[in-house]
Amino acid sequence: MLRTLFERTPRLNGSDAALMRKEIQGYFHSTFDRYEQLFEVLACDQAYYVKPIPLRHPLIFYLGHTATFFINKLMLANLVQERINPEFESMFAVGVDEMSWDDLHDAHYDWPQVSEVKAYRVAVRAAVDQVILTAPLTLPIDWNNPWWTLLMGIEHERIHLETSSVLIRQHALPFVNPHPAWEPCHRTAAAPANGLVNVSAGTVRLGKGKDDPTYGWDNEYGCHEASVQTFQTSRYLVSNREFLSFVEADGYTLDDFWEDEGRAWKNHTRADFPTFWIRDGSNWRLRLMLEEVPMRWDWPVEVNYHEAKAFCNWKQEQLGQPVRLPTEDEWYRLYDTAGLGEVPSDRAAAANIHLDHYASPCPVTEFRHGELYDVIGNVWQWTETPIYPFDGFQVHPHYDDFTTPTFDDRHNLIKGGSWIACGNESLRSSRYAFRRHFFQHAGFRYVISEAPVALPSSRYETDRLLSEYAEFHYGDEYFGVPNFPKALAQLAVQAMGDKPARKALDLGCAAGRATFELAQHFEHVTGIDFSARFIGLATEFAQQGVLRYTLTDEGELVFYRERKLADLGLDEVRRKVEFLQGDACNLKPMLTGYDLILAANLIDRLYSPLTFLSTVHERITPGGLLLIASPYTWLEEHTKRKEWIGGFKKDGESFTTLAGLKEVLGRHFRLIAGPLEVPFVIRETRRKFQHTLSETTIWEKIG
Amino acid sequence: MLRTLFERTPRLNGSDAALMRKEIQGYFHSTFDRYEQLFEVLACDQAYYVKPIPLRHPLIFYLGHTATFFINKLMLANLVQERINPEFESMFAVGVDEMSWDDLHDAHYDWPQVSEVKAYRVAVRAAVDQVILTAPLTLPIDWNNPWWTLLMGIEHERIHLETSSVLIRQHALPFVNPHPAWEPCHRTAAAPANGLVNVSAGTVRLGKGKDDPTYGWDNEYGCHEASVQTFQTSRYLVSNREFLSFVEADGYTLDDFWEDEGRAWKNHTRADFPTFWIRDGSNWRLRLMLEEVPMRWDWPVEVNYHEAKAFCNWKQEQLGQPVRLPTEDEWYRLYDTAGLGEVPSDRAAAANIHLDHYASPCPVTEFRHGELYDVIGNVWQWTETPIYPFDGFQVHPHYDDFTTPTFDDRHNLIKGGSWIACGNESLRSSRYAFRRHFFQHAGFRYVISEAPVALPSSRYETDRLLSEYAEFHYGDEYFGVPNFPKALAQLAVQAMGDKPARKALDLGCAAGRATFELAQHFEHVTGIDFSARFIGLATEFAQQGVLRYTLTDEGELVFYRERKLADLGLDEVRRKVEFLQGDACNLKPMLTGYDLILAANLIDRLYSPLTFLSTVHERITPGGLLLIASPYTWLEEHTKRKEWIGGFKKDGESFTTLAGLKEVLGRHFRLIAGPLEVPFVIRETRRKFQHTLSETTIWEKIG
Repeated sequence: MLRTLFERTPRLNGSDAALMRKEIQGYFHSTFDRYEQLFEVLACDQAYYVKPIPLRHPLIFYLGHTATFFINKLMLANLVQERINPEFESMFAVGVDEMSWDDLHDAHYDWPQVSEVKAYRVAVRAAVDQVILTAPLTLPIDWNNPWWTLLMGIEHERIHLETSSVLIRQHALPFVNPHPAWEPCHRTAAAPANGLVNVSAGTVRLGKGKDDPTYGWDNEYGCHEASVQTFQTSRYLVSNREFLSFVEADGYTLDDFWEDEGRAWKNHTRADFPTFWIRDGSNWRLRLMLEEVPMRWDWPVEVNYHEAKAFCNWKQEQLGQPVRLPTEDEWYRLYDTAGLGEVPSDRAAAANIHLDHYASPCPVTEFRHGELYDVIGNVWQWTETPIYPFDGFQVHPHYDDFTTPTFDDRHNLIKGGSWIACGNESLRSSRYAFRRHFFQHAGFRYVISEAPVALPSSRYETDRLLSEYAEFHYGDEYFGVPNFPKALAQLAVQAMGDKPARKALDLGCAAGRATFELAQHFEHVTGIDFSARFIGLATEFAQQGVLRYTLTDEGELVFYRERKLADLGLDEVRRKVEFLQGDACNLKPMLTGYDLILAANLIDRLYSPLTFLSTVHERITPGGLLLIASPYTWLEEHTKRKEWIGGFKKDGESFTTLAGLKEVLGRHFRLIAGPLEVPFVIRETRRKFQHTLSETTIWEKIG
Repeated sequence: MLRTLFERTPRLNGSDAALMRKEIQGYFHSTFDRYEQLFEVLACDQAYYVKPIPLRHPLIFYLGHTATFFINKLMLANLVQERINPEFESMFAVGVDEMSWDDLHDAHYDWPQVSEVKAYRVAVRAAVDQVILTAPLTLPIDWNNPWWTLLMGIEHERIHLETSSVLIRQHALPFVNPHPAWEPCHRTAAAPANGLVNVSAGTVRLGKGKDDPTYGWDNEYGCHEASVQTFQTSRYLVSNREFLSFVEADGYTLDDFWEDEGRAWKNHTRADFPTFWIRDGSNWRLRLMLEEVPMRWDWPVEVNYHEAKAFCNWKQEQLGQPVRLPTEDEWYRLYDTAGLGEVPSDRAAAANIHLDHYASPCPVTEFRHGELYDVIGNVWQWTETPIYPFDGFQVHPHYDDFTTPTFDDRHNLIKGGSWIACGNESLRSSRYAFRRHFFQHAGFRYVISEAPVALPSSRYETDRLLSEYAEFHYGDEYFGVPNFPKALAQLAVQAMGDKPARKALDLGCAAGRATFELAQHFEHVTGIDFSARFIGLATEFAQQGVLRYTLTDEGELVFYRERKLADLGLDEVRRKVEFLQGDACNLKPMLTGYDLILAANLIDRLYSPLTFLSTVHERITPGGLLLIASPYTWLEEHTKRKEWIGGFKKDGESFTTLAGLKEVLGRHFRLIAGPLEVPFVIRETRRKFQHTLSETTIWEKIG
């Protein structure tokens, strides 16, 4: 066991500012020191400059990174006014993410000497101390408090304490030395036979309140509640021994057990056993952070999501039962039923976590939590759940890209923490997610459940057109112009009077707002658009009730927006709408019998508006209505010149689109309202907008 | 002499509606009848279908055209509600202009029988009669009166009476027969020796008032006043005999006497003498409308502008004096000094005009007007002046393309009328213009004058971008957003306080509005833009004081706009501005010493904004100001990503353009005002606008 407890993340709701300064300084120092202590294991300066793995920076970067982060963020918070070393604060600022291929070309970097970086860290420590000692402090320290950003810096360094420890574990053995402050567990025995434990059904509540007294990352806030069905789970984390059966069953040779993405990873990397295993003739050894040891069969296996999932698929075949990883909700059910609490501040945790026990994993039999072992601690546990935002998610203005780039359905949550999960990482509410092929100090336990895995929508729509239309339909009003699809739906409903309101069709529905709005009056509304991407967006909104997208601020800068059907008063009508991809010039015959067809900003986008206009009466009930709104922006790219229905000289005279509409529709319709100009605004950037008037006419089908 | 006088264009300011109906009916009938009588000269039905010249429709088109014009225009005026024959009213509506290549392919037309068109004309006559007898009539009939459009139809047919007579004259002789109603002049004698007459200097006033009692075409209205220097003019129109000297001097063989455009015409058509001349061995004959006769040497030669101009150039060489055609202003000086008046309604004109005398030209010695002959009548006289709009020009809403397409500097005015110029064509105020290579019953007289020919600007800017910017800078306000360049100039001037205001630079001046506005405060302002087209537009505006452009209404439909510096209160500052083409990233060294540089919507269009921003201080006087306004719409097409000065993540943090400006400009400037958002609107169509906010900052150069 390590000698002293590593400081816990402070409670920020105290009322004594002097005490709070002291506590924060202690938390800062312990973190800063422990981080530097980690680098003491490096055997030589060269160890700082040789990359442990090709796709990540060498360790010198990480030594500098956590220090520059303090300065960069504290400048944003206006707690620091002057840079210490602008060059370092640029060089060490970005490049953490393994996918930044561009920034990782060695030629771009001329790393400074280790001594220079260490000297820089000394200067940063002094600057942060200065802040802690002198900056104005109003308690409590909450999300909006400038000091929150100071905590952000400390917790950020704690995350890197763990991730750097992984990199060190991946470094070549000659580059690292054992170290008394990083003593691994020495206990090992035969692995236990795993067993299954029943977990009763129940409700889990996730999400941290803004009044919670501890620091949290953006993704932890908001709320999420779910009913979890009964399921079974493995008593122990899967041990190296248990995983060996999969390896020996040719698990890495056969493709069958692997999901597509996992198979691609396996075949690309040519993995044939877990990454920290070492084959030694007919024996196996295990790489720990600083040494190689004989295989610890009763310790948890450490794998990425793909390997864990392949094991489950193999196990399912063995058992003939539905085996998979737990979802995030299910993991919380384990936590709740095990009766766990937060890591205590006054004694060692009853789990291999927070560096309270070892600088390595330990046997899966060592920490019992109710009927299970290792619900928290030892190694992180992969889940089936890609990280997603809870209801009420907001980004913190000083770190708007902490989580949002991972809302991409490609980053899965890991839960429970590892032996080196400290500070925020050790809290029940913490949520970390990594790419599924990524290695951390992470393993897994499996569950048996018939319940399908609900994959919550996490994705932010970033396609420029879709995002602009999402905002156009569901976002803010600009220049005082009322929401356009809503205004048209209201005009249509008003014109309907007490006519039958059975079915309506929203042709060219785009992001679908008018479809929802019409469903407040009609029994059923179909939204159709030529673009499958729009249909995907609208369908997802109808299903999830929430829509997330990025909006361009200026240049490449974006911000994040979330809209909910419920907030728009449209949650009730979700069951009354459907969205289909279709071509207004060639609709399926079944799409008929509508009491209203709404065609907003459609006709000047069609390749043959005449085809649409001359047949649309066939789809409308007698006495039914057709609403057409268009700015008549005829463009060759959408509609060949010869297909325009107006906007040109005809027989020498100006022939407007309205005249064309009257000519074509006049045979089957009577103009009952309009023309009137309905404005709309499409936001392109924070400062650039399209501001357009759409000429609106309402036509009644002649009985 | 023809038996009865052909009705004169009526005075529309009577007070007796019944009498007015009667007079208009008489005018309509005489016109409609006389037009049909012209077609009586055609020898057979085939004569209607064979084209007299390849680039124009056959005569059947013209027989139908003037009738359909009545119906099409009266429908616009809402005086007729029902079409008579929609097919005819489309087929015969357009295709008058010889340049409509597309519409002239024979395959497109399946012309109706002559009898069908004649029957149609009978129906139209009845319909128009019905209008004249029954439509509500409020006197007087002015430009805004629906009946104006009825007069438009009649005067339109009178124009075609003349142009069709030209086509008939161009028809092969077997297709035409002499006709008692179309008797040519039979008198001829030896041609007179031409001489020069002095014309004293004086002022001419052109332009018809809206209160004039006769019908006029759009181009006649407004006002134009000019001082005409003294000049000499030929006493007679140039006769066939006088022109023969040019032909015999190899005038058509040698290129030297021809202007570029005329030389191209001559060499393309291989003309070697006037088009109605016929070479008969060593003799010459002359084609009249319906017959060939021995050359009439004392009749006026009939040529196009190019031939007339080449003759003048030859004559100039002969005389060693500056010989050219008269300008429109000079022609009015002839008219005024000859003491002429309008064609009388109760007796034959004292000129070969209005069909009062012959269905052909006559000797140039026959009609004396003061010291000159044929100031009006006989044949039209080409001028040096391309048609242009008078101040106050407006299009008539029922015929917006009567004149506007000819405001292109390629259509020259002809003056004075011919033997068949009737109705409006015979008035002093009438203005007709044709392409310079076109044949009418037109010849010329020449003048000797040292005065240069002022070519008034007639062109409507139709380039979409330039027109949009012309409207953006000088046009209407939309959505209540004040004029943007004016607002910026005001902000700059306000910030100047009482600093020295010697020189200002408007960088990225576009259409130049801010340049003019700044010149109200500064002694001299230079507008610079990268686009030579913008510089051309702004320079023309500064020189002419008037700017004309078309604005897109919807699709291909446009309308015409005119703006004047005087109306904007900017006429006085014309002398204080200059416009130069230049590159803001690479300005000439001489452009320096400015008390103010204004850079509106510039920096996010530059290929290297940093180059501009980091050197601009060198061009500003100490204490001088720099105003930057931009929506920061960074686009790769203008500015490569690596050249952006903000709008991206830098060292992991959002780095706005404003932050970039502060960083770059901070070395030499102090931010003294802003940022504030100044809005602007760019109109694209009647219904589509860009609505943008431009972030504005004002910087003072440090001492």
